[in-house]
Amino acid sequence: MAGYHVPPLERLVDALESLPGIGHKTAQRLAYHILGLSSEEAAKFASAVTEAHESIHYCSVCCNLTDGDLCPICRDESRDRSVICVVEDPRDVFAFERTNEYHGLYHVLHGAISPLSGIGPDQLRIRELLLRVRDGSVSEVIMATNPTVEGEATAMYLSRLLKPIGVKVTRLAYGIPVGGDLEYADEVTLTRAIEGRQEL
Amino acid sequence: MAGYHVPPLERLVDALESLPGIGHKTAQRLAYHILGLSSEEAAKFASAVTEAHESIHYCSVCCNLTDGDLCPICRDESRDRSVICVVEDPRDVFAFERTNEYHGLYHVLHGAISPLSGIGPDQLRIRELLLRVRDGSVSEVIMATNPTVEGEATAMYLSRLLKPIGVKVTRLAYGIPVGGDLEYADEVTLTRAIEGRQEL
Repeated sequence: MAGYHVPPLERLVDALESLPGIGHKTAQRLAYHILGLSSEEAAKFASAVTEAHESIHYCSVCCNLTDGDLCPICRDESRDRSVICVVEDPRDVFAFERTNEYHGLYHVLHGAISPLSGIGPDQLRIRELLLRVRDGSVSEVIMATNPTVEGEATAMYLSRLLKPIGVKVTRLAYGIPVGGDLEYADEVTLTRAIEGRQEL
Repeated sequence: MAGYHVPPLERLVDALESLPGIGHKTAQRLAYHILGLSSEEAAKFASAVTEAHESIHYCSVCCNLTDGDLCPICRDESRDRSVICVVEDPRDVFAFERTNEYHGLYHVLHGAISPLSGIGPDQLRIRELLLRVRDGSVSEVIMATNPTVEGEATAMYLSRLLKPIGVKVTRLAYGIPVGGDLEYADEVTLTRAIEGRQEL
């Protein structure tokens, strides 16, 4: 901006612009909003960032995000400890929890195998999963990685590691999404929906 | 989220969700991005918020945002001190500065008169503007409020206050936007473009 520089404002805009999906205009709008907050609100905002960053780490069992040693799900005595649902991302755990239908445990890989992005099995939390399964109390591992090439490859890779341990490995069902319109379903999804058809 | 609560994460998501135009899903995505930052980056982000909030205030002359007493434009000796461009918002100053064509000073009202939103002249920086104009060194005040009902009303209100002081009050030209398509111009804009036509 020719002739007009307010360094603290620029630093705030830059910080906001570094967030994913936030462009320069949006960052400016958010920065002006933050400037309009009361001092307490601004301090609360800043401390929410530092506090979350400092106190949140991976659960020592399932690698989900938590502020304690174990995450609330691993701590919960009422959950079925014989089933582990393997997901790529902590947000997937939230998605399953919203269904209120799954009562087993989770394991968060923090990504999927993707040679193109340079992500190999070593960068994922696979060692921790194998340790849990080898312990013997697990009877089923549900592969709930994303229905993408990377998610598929990861599920196949894991199932080949897990089956020899003598555990049942399953995969989420593919098919048409509930409430969707058949007309807009892609060919691959429709093919999978036909292949996986069930008797009524 | 049934059975799954990580309070610091929830506070961060809430803080981000309080920003304008950021919904719950986006707030979650941003929160996970922030958790993935390095400690220094997270600290830098948080301090950008507090530092901007603490150090930025209104310029004592033009009410634009600045971290000093005077803003860089009011401080700049090379600017034409006889012209004041009155805008609603600090972002409008940035927009004019980007043109590199305006070399006068600004005055930021921080809003427009809007009885429906309960914003009257007293909530705007009008007193400061009158003080500047009464000082005698100003020969022209350009009304650059938005081309909305509120912006128009504010421009009319101000011009009635300023003209008796003996200063020239002008308004931005209305017309078709450069690079626009006549077909999509609305009737009011076209009417104003015809009324304001100039000889070639």
